[in-house]
Amino acid sequence: VVNIETSGVGSDGDDPTHLGEFGLIARLTQGLEPRPDVLLGVGDDAALLDIGAGDLLVATCDAQVDGIHFIRGVATYEEIGHKALAVNLSDIAAMGAEPRWALVSLLISREIGITDLEQVYAGMRALGNRHAVTVVGGNVSSSGGPFCLDITLLGTVDRSHAIRRAGARIGDAILVTGTLGTAAAGVLWSTPGEDRGVPASLSLPAREKTHRAMAAPSPQVAEGRALAASGLVTSMIDVSDGLAADLGHICRQSHVGAVVEAASLPLEASAREVADVYRHDPLQLALYGGEDYVLLCTVAAEKVRAALAAIAAVGGEGFVIGHIVGAALGMQLQLEAGQFIPLEPRGWDHLH
Amino acid sequence: VVNIETSGVGSDGDDPTHLGEFGLIARLTQGLEPRPDVLLGVGDDAALLDIGAGDLLVATCDAQVDGIHFIRGVATYEEIGHKALAVNLSDIAAMGAEPRWALVSLLISREIGITDLEQVYAGMRALGNRHAVTVVGGNVSSSGGPFCLDITLLGTVDRSHAIRRAGARIGDAILVTGTLGTAAAGVLWSTPGEDRGVPASLSLPAREKTHRAMAAPSPQVAEGRALAASGLVTSMIDVSDGLAADLGHICRQSHVGAVVEAASLPLEASAREVADVYRHDPLQLALYGGEDYVLLCTVAAEKVRAALAAIAAVGGEGFVIGHIVGAALGMQLQLEAGQFIPLEPRGWDHLH
Repeated sequence: VVNIETSGVGSDGDDPTHLGEFGLIARLTQGLEPRPDVLLGVGDDAALLDIGAGDLLVATCDAQVDGIHFIRGVATYEEIGHKALAVNLSDIAAMGAEPRWALVSLLISREIGITDLEQVYAGMRALGNRHAVTVVGGNVSSSGGPFCLDITLLGTVDRSHAIRRAGARIGDAILVTGTLGTAAAGVLWSTPGEDRGVPASLSLPAREKTHRAMAAPSPQVAEGRALAASGLVTSMIDVSDGLAADLGHICRQSHVGAVVEAASLPLEASAREVADVYRHDPLQLALYGGEDYVLLCTVAAEKVRAALAAIAAVGGEGFVIGHIVGAALGMQLQLEAGQFIPLEPRGWDHLH
Repeated sequence: VVNIETSGVGSDGDDPTHLGEFGLIARLTQGLEPRPDVLLGVGDDAALLDIGAGDLLVATCDAQVDGIHFIRGVATYEEIGHKALAVNLSDIAAMGAEPRWALVSLLISREIGITDLEQVYAGMRALGNRHAVTVVGGNVSSSGGPFCLDITLLGTVDRSHAIRRAGARIGDAILVTGTLGTAAAGVLWSTPGEDRGVPASLSLPAREKTHRAMAAPSPQVAEGRALAASGLVTSMIDVSDGLAADLGHICRQSHVGAVVEAASLPLEASAREVADVYRHDPLQLALYGGEDYVLLCTVAAEKVRAALAAIAAVGGEGFVIGHIVGAALGMQLQLEAGQFIPLEPRGWDHLH
């Protein structure tokens, strides 16, 4: 697990995993010279690039690796393709941008057949069609390693609409555009490897709902574009590493702190049911589970109602979960009884 | 080895490697709907995308996998980084475009240390600086498999300058912008695994020159832009799979045939020396070796002198190696004695 506050450089020998994903990328990309055509480079959900049009180009890439981001057999090949595109759509959504073009790089292993790959593409293309995204490039290579899909997704955004992680201000309300912890609940009951069956008491609807959230998330592209176009949002990120970790990114890059109200965290009944069956704290799922692929944003307090209306106007639902405070307070979790405990910005790290 | 003319669909069971790299991509991306913002999609060196600016966006992606595209120990980490960017620069060059922004996805394995990755990035960034390319996005994931670098490279090109594979016309001269077979000669003497040492008779300069061509190729970005800007070129591709295979792509997509003159193929002394020491036909290296990363283009016969001058003006060197004929003649190799033999469009396939 990465702690982004302490993932320093050079303190842990030569093993890249000791730096954490973000620390390693920061180290490898340090000293890159600023350029007028790069409005935003490494360190946000996506890059913002100036190609001299009215719109900016938005670019992001994310890989999905068998055994790390998905498990064949737990997820179908269609779901694997869906998810590989979905995680990139979510990054584009977090900039408030319109996704448009995908480049798909496949590393295939011996176990993968043509029909498997066709299902991967079917899942990817079905989700792409829903968001008017088309595949414009591809690359296939065999490898002795696990099956891997690496997608680069390109989009466009009006120059004045793009939303970054930096920009949250003291007093802003913190919103999420969907429920938290559902995907993590799916992982909780479906991860194989231990000799336990799934308890019969876990209902079929809860299994289906949490599996779907885990294996085939719905990126909130419409919500992201509506929020960006509204002009109400001061910062935005998608929740991939977990609420606490991703709120940590906003706080660090905006130089602010945050208070999250435990009682306000939206959890689905399905996630609560899984947590209950497995005697797991649902709050932990919501704060640290990750892979929610909802949007997390900040909005001036007096504009919360308008932001919720903008989300509702595209068929979504928004939830206020806390507010931004000064950096000196760090991140705090306010429990139902009223007391505060520090909220660590930890979460999922793809290097562990 | 893929035969692009015969890599049909579905004839070889469910193993994706039976389709070949191009056949597999064609199968997976079939039926993609045309869109006005995609001027060129899957099936050229790079995609041409319309973002509403004077320039078009050019996008390509290519992965380098340990043990397939490079061998750690044979290539240094700096060379690995250099080559991963170089192969993408070469694709951008083949469109006549200006490379600008790179997204770098790393799959790291247990053997790779931070200092190794820093050297990979040093090699990549040094080459990037030479071509004004900067890293704008990244992704790192651990995997149980081999070390892999997957780079997406974005560039821009004037709407009227972009050069495609389709466009060669009967009577056009065929040009290459550099020598052929040097990288393949490097593979010939440096590939480990057999219990043979390198013959003492192979000179150090020949080793150095062929190693460099194999491990750290020089993409011909200036040549590509100069040729595109000249308006003289009817089709262009970079030689990555091998001259015969890549000329095959131009012929297939331009609906023409080609005659290549064996005596005109430019080979370096270093490649000839390696071929001589290993009793290998140098012509085979030039035709099928691959990974040359020079540009292959076609030019109307009366404009050859101007095209060679355009290449020379940016410090490069061009060679006329044959001419375009009707599709019915297919591809022919004209030997020094004058007779013709069929030239098969085979070459390197990343799935084998």
